[in-house]
Amino acid sequence: MSVSGFANVDLDRLGRQGVSEVVYGEGKTAEQIAAILGRLAAARQSPLLATRVDAAKAADVRRLMGGQGTYFPDARLIRVGEAKAPGGHGRIAVVSAGTSDMPVAEEAAVTAETLGNEVLRVRDVGVAGLHRLMARLDDLRSASVIVAVAGMEGALASVIGGLVACPVIAVPTSVGYGASFKGLSALLSMLNSCSAGISVVNIDNGFGAGFLASRINHIGIK
Amino acid sequence: MSVSGFANVDLDRLGRQGVSEVVYGEGKTAEQIAAILGRLAAARQSPLLATRVDAAKAADVRRLMGGQGTYFPDARLIRVGEAKAPGGHGRIAVVSAGTSDMPVAEEAAVTAETLGNEVLRVRDVGVAGLHRLMARLDDLRSASVIVAVAGMEGALASVIGGLVACPVIAVPTSVGYGASFKGLSALLSMLNSCSAGISVVNIDNGFGAGFLASRINHIGIK
Amino acid sequence: MSVSGFANVDLDRLGRQGVSEVVYGEGKTAEQIAAILGRLAAARQSPLLATRVDAAKAADVRRLMGGQGTYFPDARLIRVGEAKAPGGHGRIAVVSAGTSDMPVAEEAAVTAETLGNEVLRVRDVGVAGLHRLMARLDDLRSASVIVAVAGMEGALASVIGGLVACPVIAVPTSVGYGASFKGLSALLSMLNSCSAGISVVNIDNGFGAGFLASRINHIGIK
Amino acid sequence: MSVSGFANVDLDRLGRQGVSEVVYGEGKTAEQIAAILGRLAAARQSPLLATRVDAAKAADVRRLMGGQGTYFPDARLIRVGEAKAPGGHGRIAVVSAGTSDMPVAEEAAVTAETLGNEVLRVRDVGVAGLHRLMARLDDLRSASVIVAVAGMEGALASVIGGLVACPVIAVPTSVGYGASFKGLSALLSMLNSCSAGISVVNIDNGFGAGFLASRINHIGIK
Amino acid sequence: MSVSGFANVDLDRLGRQGVSEVVYGEGKTAEQIAAILGRLAAARQSPLLATRVDAAKAADVRRLMGGQGTYFPDARLIRVGEAKAPGGHGRIAVVSAGTSDMPVAEEAAVTAETLGNEVLRVRDVGVAGLHRLMARLDDLRSASVIVAVAGMEGALASVIGGLVACPVIAVPTSVGYGASFKGLSALLSMLNSCSAGISVVNIDNGFGAGFLASRINHIGIK
Amino acid sequence: MSVSGFANVDLDRLGRQGVSEVVYGEGKTAEQIAAILGRLAAARQSPLLATRVDAAKAADVRRLMGGQGTYFPDARLIRVGEAKAPGGHGRIAVVSAGTSDMPVAEEAAVTAETLGNEVLRVRDVGVAGLHRLMARLDDLRSASVIVAVAGMEGALASVIGGLVACPVIAVPTSVGYGASFKGLSALLSMLNSCSAGISVVNIDNGFGAGFLASRINHIGIK
Amino acid sequence: MSVSGFANVDLDRLGRQGVSEVVYGEGKTAEQIAAILGRLAAARQSPLLATRVDAAKAADVRRLMGGQGTYFPDARLIRVGEAKAPGGHGRIAVVSAGTSDMPVAEEAAVTAETLGNEVLRVRDVGVAGLHRLMARLDDLRSASVIVAVAGMEGALASVIGGLVACPVIAVPTSVGYGASFKGLSALLSMLNSCSAGISVVNIDNGFGAGFLASRINHIGIK
Amino acid sequence: MSVSGFANVDLDRLGRQGVSEVVYGEGKTAEQIAAILGRLAAARQSPLLATRVDAAKAADVRRLMGGQGTYFPDARLIRVGEAKAPGGHGRIAVVSAGTSDMPVAEEAAVTAETLGNEVLRVRDVGVAGLHRLMARLDDLRSASVIVAVAGMEGALASVIGGLVACPVIAVPTSVGYGASFKGLSALLSMLNSCSAGISVVNIDNGFGAGFLASRINHIGIK
Repeated sequence: MSVSGFANVDLDRLGRQGVSEVVYGEGKTAEQIAAILGRLAAARQSPLLATRVDAAKAADVRRLMGGQGTYFPDARLIRVGEAKAPGGHGRIAVVSAGTSDMPVAEEAAVTAETLGNEVLRVRDVGVAGLHRLMARLDDLRSASVIVAVAGMEGALASVIGGLVACPVIAVPTSVGYGASFKGLSALLSMLNSCSAGISVVNIDNGFGAGFLASRINHIGIK
Repeated sequence: MSVSGFANVDLDRLGRQGVSEVVYGEGKTAEQIAAILGRLAAARQSPLLATRVDAAKAADVRRLMGGQGTYFPDARLIRVGEAKAPGGHGRIAVVSAGTSDMPVAEEAAVTAETLGNEVLRVRDVGVAGLHRLMARLDDLRSASVIVAVAGMEGALASVIGGLVACPVIAVPTSVGYGASFKGLSALLSMLNSCSAGISVVNIDNGFGAGFLASRINHIGIK
Repeated sequence: MSVSGFANVDLDRLGRQGVSEVVYGEGKTAEQIAAILGRLAAARQSPLLATRVDAAKAADVRRLMGGQGTYFPDARLIRVGEAKAPGGHGRIAVVSAGTSDMPVAEEAAVTAETLGNEVLRVRDVGVAGLHRLMARLDDLRSASVIVAVAGMEGALASVIGGLVACPVIAVPTSVGYGASFKGLSALLSMLNSCSAGISVVNIDNGFGAGFLASRINHIGIK
Repeated sequence: MSVSGFANVDLDRLGRQGVSEVVYGEGKTAEQIAAILGRLAAARQSPLLATRVDAAKAADVRRLMGGQGTYFPDARLIRVGEAKAPGGHGRIAVVSAGTSDMPVAEEAAVTAETLGNEVLRVRDVGVAGLHRLMARLDDLRSASVIVAVAGMEGALASVIGGLVACPVIAVPTSVGYGASFKGLSALLSMLNSCSAGISVVNIDNGFGAGFLASRINHIGIK
Repeated sequence: MSVSGFANVDLDRLGRQGVSEVVYGEGKTAEQIAAILGRLAAARQSPLLATRVDAAKAADVRRLMGGQGTYFPDARLIRVGEAKAPGGHGRIAVVSAGTSDMPVAEEAAVTAETLGNEVLRVRDVGVAGLHRLMARLDDLRSASVIVAVAGMEGALASVIGGLVACPVIAVPTSVGYGASFKGLSALLSMLNSCSAGISVVNIDNGFGAGFLASRINHIGIK
Repeated sequence: MSVSGFANVDLDRLGRQGVSEVVYGEGKTAEQIAAILGRLAAARQSPLLATRVDAAKAADVRRLMGGQGTYFPDARLIRVGEAKAPGGHGRIAVVSAGTSDMPVAEEAAVTAETLGNEVLRVRDVGVAGLHRLMARLDDLRSASVIVAVAGMEGALASVIGGLVACPVIAVPTSVGYGASFKGLSALLSMLNSCSAGISVVNIDNGFGAGFLASRINHIGIK
Repeated sequence: MSVSGFANVDLDRLGRQGVSEVVYGEGKTAEQIAAILGRLAAARQSPLLATRVDAAKAADVRRLMGGQGTYFPDARLIRVGEAKAPGGHGRIAVVSAGTSDMPVAEEAAVTAETLGNEVLRVRDVGVAGLHRLMARLDDLRSASVIVAVAGMEGALASVIGGLVACPVIAVPTSVGYGASFKGLSALLSMLNSCSAGISVVNIDNGFGAGFLASRINHIGIK
Repeated sequence: MSVSGFANVDLDRLGRQGVSEVVYGEGKTAEQIAAILGRLAAARQSPLLATRVDAAKAADVRRLMGGQGTYFPDARLIRVGEAKAPGGHGRIAVVSAGTSDMPVAEEAAVTAETLGNEVLRVRDVGVAGLHRLMARLDDLRSASVIVAVAGMEGALASVIGGLVACPVIAVPTSVGYGASFKGLSALLSMLNSCSAGISVVNIDNGFGAGFLASRINHIGIK
């Protein structure tokens, strides 16, 4: 049997696993995004996402696609197709420290909703105001997976990690100035967390965190 | 009600969640490790782990504890108490690239076993010999969670991430020389993976990966 | 004999080796590029290249040179003079992971074609979709030299290096965000490849990769 | 008037300000430390400190000085002369996360005691176990200055900074592994704290933190 | 008693400590800044600050707030409410090396004035012209706290630290070029100061320095 | 057809390509090295190499293998089996700057000889003594491939690259002190070479350079 | 005698040493530059320089100063006052590799001419074309001081350092892309030069190199 | 005329320029050092230096050379042959901050003496005790060239640069801890000095500084 044979098998089997496609929109023109979304939409049922699309470009993409798709301005996302029905083991909490971390947090939240999860937003709970975080402790402990989004305040993931017993996905953001070094400080801080049960995705990678949170939330559910 | 009151509540609630304790053994004397393990063991039922303990120090610790505990030389771990019975949604696969990555991979594997998971070791499957990785594809796809351990070969996590539909926890190791910069190269490579569904823990943090894999594997299971 | 005498000898001997000249266009005005190309073209037969020239600047350069030269928009290259007839030991494959890596890949491809090589483009074969790479395995194995272009996906070079027996020139690209650090992550990943037979050029240096691939492909051929 | 005249004036005026001298002991022999301490002790009344002295070297130094001086093994400090009587606006709290941070915390604490301050040690209150930190909240809030010592757990300073209204001096330690990069992660994390009222000293610089805490605690007190 | 109960207690107690609120203006729209300031102003008596606001945006903010607030162009600050009456143990000196460091120095100075401190500006005293610094020595020595602001000239903090007996807060600025690496050189230089009594805040963090200087200057004063 | 089928095919096809195996000896015991070499030697005809083996460990390995294998002390290599007969398009020149670069240069040279190439050593030709390099210009120009090994003196690759018309493989070494940062300076310098026709392998990777040089030298030769 | 007395003495003595003043123009408005130049010109005889001034701003500055001053567009410098008469021990050679390094080289050259030195420009002598450098060897050896300006081509300083017996001041430039990291690669390469007699100034610091070259060239000449 | 002809000419001409040879002793055995020194001593008149040689190795080297050579323990240098008679334009001052910087300072001083210069040591004048530096101001101003050696205290070069009118060669040392990053902090600080007339050599490169200082001090003197 040929090597190409392997590839075909692979493609089929992967396809059956319901992986949602994503288009990374930064640096692509509206024409390119519309073309890729169009091609992918023709080939499959699952909802599609295009990330890092500003409002103006999103309007162009939707026009090029004949009005198809929904734009989520806070998340800078276009979704083509409907979100799946909420399912999984429980609720995913997307926690963020400051308003500047919002776009990344929303990218994670809308991604998780699209993939079929109930999402709880917990905002403005940076560790500099621990009482606000504490006030949401019951919410945090009710989640099956937590996505913790923070920039300079990389400490957020550590603190949450010590308070809950579910998996925590930490997303460093490039928000900050000076020695935040475009997210490097938060990234290192999160990697060095003393709390167990935390892992980290790339700086600003809200999509990746939402996608992984959904996978975890659906584990063992066919 | 006083602030201390909060702390007591918290301690109780955390205690009910069955979190296993770990002692980071590097830089501690056998006396210190034995003392901490003794104190913790007296207070709880769960198994305890001490990581980064070499064979000589482990012998001393066990002698000081009256022979208590089991030493896992490949994982450089001491376990006090029995591993929990295997449970969870499925099997955790711990995948490693080279023989030098073994200690970190074993730290992850024994941690996951201790916390009540069936673990499958998949070894010597670096991307430079892709055919060996392919030969284990069915094993990889049968896992509920994958821990991917690799040093210079940070590529392993990306490749696996593209082949499976379960969560992948990537562990960069400090193995390598020159521009591997003690694991930095693998760490960056894993954070930048184009495959979705991957997150990363600290360099050489086998315990953290095994602990998180277990949490994910038990999600929604009380 | 004087020192200057050495230099003259050297100049002559280098001239006989048919080295093609290149003008790095970034940061130069159309006037500067046209002037340098004009001066070089007057002095020699070989084709000339100007790299990193956007479409607007290219139009200006060609106008200033009286319409001389061809512009390759995907590669952002101007070529003055004809490509040499294809020769060498075999075909050079230029492999790229994502559409954002295209300009660098095309810079390599057009450079190699200009210097007298048959070039095969293998696109969209990132390691996150290994089946697409596998589907092109026979193409990869038929090449005499491979140029592997990848940004975040620095893993591509390692994976290819393990599948073929020809020299692989890896080109990290500055595509990416967050911890890709403008190509640093891909650069380190490629330098640390566990596959033998791989070497690396500077970030985004498509010209350098194409030039070197041609030198290798013509080795031993006068 | 001559330039040297300035220097003399300066020396006199500085002398009147009661600055305590310190000898950085790392990399110096017992002979060198004893000689410097002896010279300084002859010239002034204030207590003297030698930092970073291990037990063996300390024994040698004391022998060479005819038994003079006290050794603080946990702080790795030798003190010659008596600590000043406690004074200042209030109590200095020295807070540390893990047992590995102890030597740096003790260096700060003994330094502050030597310079005439009451010091409260608050230990083992890393943010991964927030309830332990909370249980000491009244202690933290009773302090006039806080020194927060933490390695991987750089988050400690941020969390404390949000809970108190006094100045916080953060001391990153080189404790950790992997991406802690010998204290760099904690250092960056502390510099990026979102809590106001925090400043940072060099990695492992317990002496500097204790010295500054004392200066702050005595402000406005002649 | 519930966890939320703790948070309420906390909020109350913190509120009694007279902490001034600050809005980090960079990356926020005039609308966002005005909205946050309006919400905070309604809830409290203390003066409010918005930092990193350029003149055009400040005009918009003030217009949106019905003319409320004062703009400090050199400090790029908006203040809502009156500065507190000057108090504390003494005068805060804000020292800067070059004219390019002025915005950061003014941010520190206006912050300290707002929080109730007398502030002395000492400008243009870089260490390359030591005689200018020396000419202000009596001013420096008369201060209760010093904020030392310098970019490339990170040496300023060390030199001042050796001349005075009060706490010195060093603020590295991102001014410079080449190997200043956007403030990293000044930051490292300040952290490594051989003078005791110095601590460091984040690059360009004038607000943080002014806030901390005020806290120190009011220590022990209810 | 199954996935495993692919792997088998792959294994066969790779095997036919005559790839020589290498064992990276650093961090492995003599027992481990001997065991791996023994297993590999049983399965194939090609010569085997173990790199980074010091003299004492090499003696142990050879003893464990019943005297089998040859040790090359300058290259810190063990070879099991005979070098292939010299072939290829021409001679490979291994050029090094200082005596401290010798072990890496010899690792490259012996690797290339083992794989069937004539190798010319050109030593002690650092760019600080350009006349010594010039004296070997005819040798350099007679080579079909050049391996340029240099530590602090990363300039060597650039200078050679400008003098010859064959492919140049640059190997930075970790030799040096201070701002050489264990080879980083040489690595960056080589990646930024203005000469075309140069590519770079990892710091100290003499084996990789020799292996690639051989591949290039045998291109188009079955 | 007072401390201020020292400062006055100092100012007088420094003034007698004929130090030329310089204004760093980047980030300053034309108004600011004109004001500073005006103030300095009123107080002294020596020529003044303003560096990093583009053509448009220079026109504004000159207009604001009533036409005073000369603009050097290649060096991006304004000079107020006449260059001193050439003197010193010999000629200063300013050597540069590529046309992109020209502005920094000219900044050095015009600075040195202003301070009273004969300057020889040696251009386009990068080490990738060693024959062009060799052709100027007699010129290089006739200089009393050499300023070597190079970006990616940091090798230039090493090569020149090995060919001459006079002091060499190396100026790394931020020209380049990818792993040149805005001059860091050239900076490290120059610091690690194996040739003795070389020292380095900050990236792009043409003024500093020209100033120092003049100091060296006038050494021992009152 | 042949290329080798050039090399001979070069060697002759360089030889006439009286360049002293140096052997970098670190990482070399006593046998290797003795062999190189013996070979060089046979070929020339000038004094020779071997740097970075500890006392034990120095004793071995001298024994192997039949007692030839003088060892300077503070400078860790062996000198073979006599120092040249002091000459040049004036005196070279070698200034150092702390006792830990002594070995590097002495390496510079003995090198300069060997090459025929009067050297003045100015010790223990770190900027944290500015009055000690000021007390030596006349000494500093009497020098023709200054070598400023400092570790953490990179500020020293800036301060001196502002006080004198002669060339200053700054030598960062690897002394320090924490964020000194083995000399990187001092290196960056020195490169960013705001004082003109300063240049920098590699970390710990006392030889290079002494050599360059001598070249500068002898400029224009045949």
